[in-house]
Amino acid sequence: MKIVRVQKDGEVFYAVRQGDLLKRLSEAPFERCAFTGEEIPVSAAKLLVPCEPTKIVAVGLNFAKHAAELQGGHPAPAAPILFLKPLSALIAHGDAIEYPAVSQRVDFEAELAVVIGKQCKNITPLDAKDCIFGYTALNDVTARDIQKIDGQWTRAKSFDTFCPVGPCIDTEYSPKGRRVQSVLNGRVMQDGAFDDMLFDIPALVSFISVCMTLFPGDIIATGTPEGIGPMRRGDTIEIRIEGLCSLINHVK
Amino acid sequence: MKIVRVQKDGEVFYAVRQGDLLKRLSEAPFERCAFTGEEIPVSAAKLLVPCEPTKIVAVGLNFAKHAAELQGGHPAPAAPILFLKPLSALIAHGDAIEYPAVSQRVDFEAELAVVIGKQCKNITPLDAKDCIFGYTALNDVTARDIQKIDGQWTRAKSFDTFCPVGPCIDTEYSPKGRRVQSVLNGRVMQDGAFDDMLFDIPALVSFISVCMTLFPGDIIATGTPEGIGPMRRGDTIEIRIEGLCSLINHVK
Repeated sequence: MKIVRVQKDGEVFYAVRQGDLLKRLSEAPFERCAFTGEEIPVSAAKLLVPCEPTKIVAVGLNFAKHAAELQGGHPAPAAPILFLKPLSALIAHGDAIEYPAVSQRVDFEAELAVVIGKQCKNITPLDAKDCIFGYTALNDVTARDIQKIDGQWTRAKSFDTFCPVGPCIDTEYSPKGRRVQSVLNGRVMQDGAFDDMLFDIPALVSFISVCMTLFPGDIIATGTPEGIGPMRRGDTIEIRIEGLCSLINHVK
Repeated sequence: MKIVRVQKDGEVFYAVRQGDLLKRLSEAPFERCAFTGEEIPVSAAKLLVPCEPTKIVAVGLNFAKHAAELQGGHPAPAAPILFLKPLSALIAHGDAIEYPAVSQRVDFEAELAVVIGKQCKNITPLDAKDCIFGYTALNDVTARDIQKIDGQWTRAKSFDTFCPVGPCIDTEYSPKGRRVQSVLNGRVMQDGAFDDMLFDIPALVSFISVCMTLFPGDIIATGTPEGIGPMRRGDTIEIRIEGLCSLINHVK
């Protein structure tokens, strides 16, 4: 199933997308899918971020070649490096990424995002699958100059509009054997295989759950491969998750 | 006014505290205080975290002597260093701080917390006062060993129960000339003057608002003075904000 969250005529609701049709749901679909019976064309609704997280947990340096390309070069970490992005940074497919006045270099980072389906804490990698609702695309937009100045990554990754997510959550997707790309103005910039992650997705969900209780709708950004680079005003950036979706935003 | 949020008979509501009495409010008090007329004794209700933030923004190294005492010694930063704590870490006055199995050193950090009163973005330090609803106490609990391993601070500061906040929000408090203390099992461990902050509160609120839109109920933890140290199971830790309140938690 492909789950979206949309706005139409002032109302906000979840829906299942089938081709060009949205089948409206009466509530968030984490426990069950309750259809209202209403069907509308995709074109009649504005796509929103496809879930309502209580937190966005992101993983740094989860691809060895990306760790090496960062200034100074990072060794592959012994354990996942975590940071948080604020909810105020969320934007949907089609929304604009805004260049902050205080940064001269804003980068794209293509990532697969896990959406949590049920409350969990201290789970094993084996149990992680039961807690994953589905997958979507995420752009971990980063003010690279500020990241270098601060040392701590939070501010560089927390500006408003720096967390595009969507457009849909695919509940049946498997990243195995698949790739993630970023495509800047039509040109492929990043192209990484999920199988090259240093810590795989069950390991990440388990590791994070040892620290924090995860709730339905929470988002885990699983790290970006090598090839990061800057965006300029007027650019169009696409995060392409092979076999799942394309998340497209422009920069203003 | 001293604002609390409480649970009583399965209901959760805001109230104004006057001595040992709670005057119930019909809604969050950010726009106005609407009293229901109901009054109950403080002892009849369980105190909760006194607001419902969409994010908790914290400031590192905001006292020069604390920056110097950290391993390796940090110079005073040129700009505030930000990090986020997840909402899942929040606990109330009286709740237990839980020692994670993966850490051998969990520290207290006494801090004054700002509670935001209205949505703001890109405000000046002069306008910051209008966006502050009030102040409360916060313990920025930190797994010091994990902070050193990770380099990035997020995981060390994000474990469940690592963000005690409360017990009340004082809407008339002024930190000028006042002090913050941590008191471990009755012994004063930290004792810092708010006037020694490297970046004062209007500067912090302004700086953060340049990055992120702030919303009513959002919390800003303004940094801890020197004297941090570890807690052990069975300890009682008190964060004492002079002229405002004491936030007391035990460690289990």
